[in-house]
Amino acid sequence: VNIFLYALMDAGAAAFLRGNLENCSLHWADKLALRPEDEARFQACSVCFGNVPAKWLARHPRLEWLQLESVGFEYYHGHEWSLTHPNLRVTNLRGVFDSPAAETAVAGLLHFVRGLNLLVPAQAHNAWDPSGIRAQSGLLADAQVIILGFGSVGRRVRRLLEAFGCSVRSFSRRDPEAEIKDRTALDAALPSADVLIGCLPHTSETEGMLDRRRLALLPPQAYLVNIGRGSLIDEAALRESLTSGRLRGAVLDVTREEPIPEDHPFWTCPNLLLTQHSAGGSSGELRAKAQFFVANFRRYEAGTPLLNLVSLQQGY
Amino acid sequence: VNIFLYALMDAGAAAFLRGNLENCSLHWADKLALRPEDEARFQACSVCFGNVPAKWLARHPRLEWLQLESVGFEYYHGHEWSLTHPNLRVTNLRGVFDSPAAETAVAGLLHFVRGLNLLVPAQAHNAWDPSGIRAQSGLLADAQVIILGFGSVGRRVRRLLEAFGCSVRSFSRRDPEAEIKDRTALDAALPSADVLIGCLPHTSETEGMLDRRRLALLPPQAYLVNIGRGSLIDEAALRESLTSGRLRGAVLDVTREEPIPEDHPFWTCPNLLLTQHSAGGSSGELRAKAQFFVANFRRYEAGTPLLNLVSLQQGY
Repeated sequence: VNIFLYALMDAGAAAFLRGNLENCSLHWADKLALRPEDEARFQACSVCFGNVPAKWLARHPRLEWLQLESVGFEYYHGHEWSLTHPNLRVTNLRGVFDSPAAETAVAGLLHFVRGLNLLVPAQAHNAWDPSGIRAQSGLLADAQVIILGFGSVGRRVRRLLEAFGCSVRSFSRRDPEAEIKDRTALDAALPSADVLIGCLPHTSETEGMLDRRRLALLPPQAYLVNIGRGSLIDEAALRESLTSGRLRGAVLDVTREEPIPEDHPFWTCPNLLLTQHSAGGSSGELRAKAQFFVANFRRYEAGTPLLNLVSLQQGY
Repeated sequence: VNIFLYALMDAGAAAFLRGNLENCSLHWADKLALRPEDEARFQACSVCFGNVPAKWLARHPRLEWLQLESVGFEYYHGHEWSLTHPNLRVTNLRGVFDSPAAETAVAGLLHFVRGLNLLVPAQAHNAWDPSGIRAQSGLLADAQVIILGFGSVGRRVRRLLEAFGCSVRSFSRRDPEAEIKDRTALDAALPSADVLIGCLPHTSETEGMLDRRRLALLPPQAYLVNIGRGSLIDEAALRESLTSGRLRGAVLDVTREEPIPEDHPFWTCPNLLLTQHSAGGSSGELRAKAQFFVANFRRYEAGTPLLNLVSLQQGY
């Protein structure tokens, strides 16, 4: 099997792939320093690991399997893949980012709830003020939480918060287990939320879902966390809410512009913690991605159904 | 019943006590602005809520019940209370601080593990560096954790960390459920710990337990959290470990000196987060303390066993 390796790898992860794909021809590309011949090398492969440019994929209808190195894949929208690539199977990395993303969501929430947003600057000024900090601290225990999205990250966040004693409701239009099934019910629930967490992909439906009107339904003690996609939120409205105290705090892992430009107003927005799209990552992530690809490749070889099949059309 | 109210209260908590202790004579003292007659007023009461000075207690052998407003009570050590106050029952607030203390312990851990210690200063400098942060981030999932102490806070921390997927062992010489039962076993376990959490009271046994030799048994990727009492740790050895990178990070809620003096080296110690003895607190804590006292007072009135009986001699 000719495999095109376009995913970001380090030496350890690359060695793991080499050691576990001994009978394959591995064709490596450095996505950060592409060479003119790389697309032709891709065209010669039937399997690809990594999010190759959409135009490369459009010009290679014989590709059999594309293993994405991400969960989201909005950059492939806008092409009728099912018509031009009828035999292509696409899989994503759903599950690989669950623990890191959920842990960063909880880390960011606790940063505000337990007063670390006050303690860190107090430490920089040698300022002892435990009673002031205690008076401004809250608890996750007993908090009312709404999680937008019931995918694997949203489920993982939910399990963690339930362990803290939070009362959690999930929003999903598709999942029968979700307590909140449509936007009317969501609007009715938002005024009682202490915490709202976005774990949704970017689609035409989620774009701008947290608009000015909906953000204003949250009570002033509420915290907002977004670890899905930045397109979910009206960012100007969010900044105004945080600046005026209409919202207590926000943790954004994702933003409409990434990288966030150096002069972007988010950098200095009060009561905002930017986690810089680091939530899905950890020092072990490249190895974890490589392990997932190898496990799925065993299925490809054996002809058993691949894990994490997705539809490039539908966006999930 | 004459009740002496020496606990710190706010208007809401005081109103709650008045509303729920209508048949009692309430004698309020402002512990932050004591008057000369306050000790005599205390002597006239049979019940006290709040940690009155040890010398007041020594001079009032007729007190029937002292409800402490804390869990720890090391300031009453050094007196043979069982001989001089044979009819005194003492209860503490075990349980009231479990959630806040455990949440701050997890908040502080996640601050380091998920790279918020890098993200917060990066935000102050408008510096976008997700890949650098991802490469330096870890996960609580699968971490090897040792918790010193198996009281109610230690158990609560354990439950939270197990929800994250940590593998937790508890150290207790007394509790049969603890996996680590003596210091020899602890020393053998420390080299494999990713996280060590102190949840021990101050006693002659715990004083200096984490001495230089024992701290050096931790591996360099380990994090140390202390939400028990500051006397547990050799603080000079800890500072050296954090400064030299012999230990990856520490979260101290408690220190040997509190308040921490303005010129104390801890303020500027690298890889150290000071939570300033705020871990047990929250904006709802005074109300929670008042509620516990009223619930225990109902038992006192009814002659049923009081909750949370402790021995001032034994220190737990």
